[in-house]
Amino acid sequence: MAATAISVRLHPTAARHVASSARRHPTAARHVASSARRARLGSVRAQSAPAAAAALTQDDLKRLAAVRAVEQVQSGMVLGLGTGSTAAFAVAEIGALLAAGKLEKIVGVPTSKRTFEQAQSLGIPLSTLDDHPSIDLAIDGADEVDPDLNLVKGRGGALLREKMVEAASAKFIVVVDETKLVDGLGGSGLAMPVEVVQFCWKYNLVRLQELFKEEGVEAKLRFEGDKPYVTDNSNYIVDLYFKTPIKDALAAGQEIAALEGVVDHGLFLNMANSVIIAGTDGVSVKTK
Amino acid sequence: MAATAISVRLHPTAARHVASSARRHPTAARHVASSARRARLGSVRAQSAPAAAAALTQDDLKRLAAVRAVEQVQSGMVLGLGTGSTAAFAVAEIGALLAAGKLEKIVGVPTSKRTFEQAQSLGIPLSTLDDHPSIDLAIDGADEVDPDLNLVKGRGGALLREKMVEAASAKFIVVVDETKLVDGLGGSGLAMPVEVVQFCWKYNLVRLQELFKEEGVEAKLRFEGDKPYVTDNSNYIVDLYFKTPIKDALAAGQEIAALEGVVDHGLFLNMANSVIIAGTDGVSVKTK
Repeated sequence: MAATAISVRLHPTAARHVASSARRHPTAARHVASSARRARLGSVRAQSAPAAAAALTQDDLKRLAAVRAVEQVQSGMVLGLGTGSTAAFAVAEIGALLAAGKLEKIVGVPTSKRTFEQAQSLGIPLSTLDDHPSIDLAIDGADEVDPDLNLVKGRGGALLREKMVEAASAKFIVVVDETKLVDGLGGSGLAMPVEVVQFCWKYNLVRLQELFKEEGVEAKLRFEGDKPYVTDNSNYIVDLYFKTPIKDALAAGQEIAALEGVVDHGLFLNMANSVIIAGTDGVSVKTK
Repeated sequence: MAATAISVRLHPTAARHVASSARRHPTAARHVASSARRARLGSVRAQSAPAAAAALTQDDLKRLAAVRAVEQVQSGMVLGLGTGSTAAFAVAEIGALLAAGKLEKIVGVPTSKRTFEQAQSLGIPLSTLDDHPSIDLAIDGADEVDPDLNLVKGRGGALLREKMVEAASAKFIVVVDETKLVDGLGGSGLAMPVEVVQFCWKYNLVRLQELFKEEGVEAKLRFEGDKPYVTDNSNYIVDLYFKTPIKDALAAGQEIAALEGVVDHGLFLNMANSVIIAGTDGVSVKTK
């Protein structure tokens, strides 16, 4: 279960080093795209760090990790396109490489209506699991990553479609900034989402709260304005806030899934092949 | 796992015997209601069997089983109200007993919009699992019953709500006519329904078909007219037609449930406490 880590140190104050660092690592770098990438990274620096010594922002880090993951994309691949702020950088990068002719014959399978719209606007040819049930590579963000590369996902509300697409992928690369690392899932104190049918959602909310009594969980129906948030699949989300991390994530996942009316949950266990982590002191890759 | 059976023989040609037979068995009969019940059974006979020697129809049998189950209902109970043609007879009987003052303070938790409407029209006080998470007794039909009292349910499309309500019930009585008995689940050759999210339903249909290759399954999206049938929870139904019965229903249930995008399935395993079976030669009760 131990994950191996490869670290690449970056000079924190000079973003142009980011691109050249990638070029120095031939296994990861796609030389064809490095100049386009460098130009974009440069523009990030220009926007976010007008002072020469300013630190990279969280968005810079997300983009760094996303761009690194897209280096794994090869022409002809069927790609799972994730949802969320970090995944959006990966989709943007794929769109840019297609537009520049550096990638060809890509088919994207989006994990949400939002990603569908972004990818469509970038001219990425799109399909569905129905027509492309086998995906070569999925790239997506995560809300939490534990030391075994198990994940919490779905704060963006797309957990079910993400799980379907990523479970159908031969390889699943997770891209995060370093703030997403936790010792145990649920440990961030932020939401772990559970998608439930609307019918008797309160009943399931109470059952979920009972299930994690020991962890001191608080279960809350997710709202959007003054109405319950409705997923792409017409369901509700019950967010679980843990006071202490989940002790046995695998058992927890099975117990949640066994509740009738639970459609899916945000625990993505034994799914990620590698996690690319961008931090202020460099990009590291953890592989299972 | 062996179920015990109690048989009550009926005179097949004289429906008035049905009610008196129930009266002769004090553990099952509610004397207070027997005359009302006899009157209704008589009217069934009048409609369906104008000739004195005509056999009982399938509807007569369904009603017999349903009425027998309702004998277990006591005033003050919270009741799970099933869905389908046999369950509808039970709901009608509960409504009649309430109207006659033979039952009081009943709360019904319906398992579908259809049952909600029927029960409401009969003046049965209604609630939901949200407000009544513990149910005393659920009564529902089934599409198949195997020798261990495991069931296939949901041909009526209400499988998820039925499963939620019946799993929350201290006691679950199944009412069927004898045509529903099978040696192994799937053995009727009729549909075993799986509720799936609309997103990439075809993908899941193919996966379900793959899962039961050995049983020679045919998976079909359920239609209503020229459009896919949509459940009360906005999902689709994939119906599985088995050529040979499912070998290991418990394993099958777990494998189906593990598919992302599957919301629930029609295998109701280890849930029924007793099954009331009405046949042309009598009513029998199987108990676990």
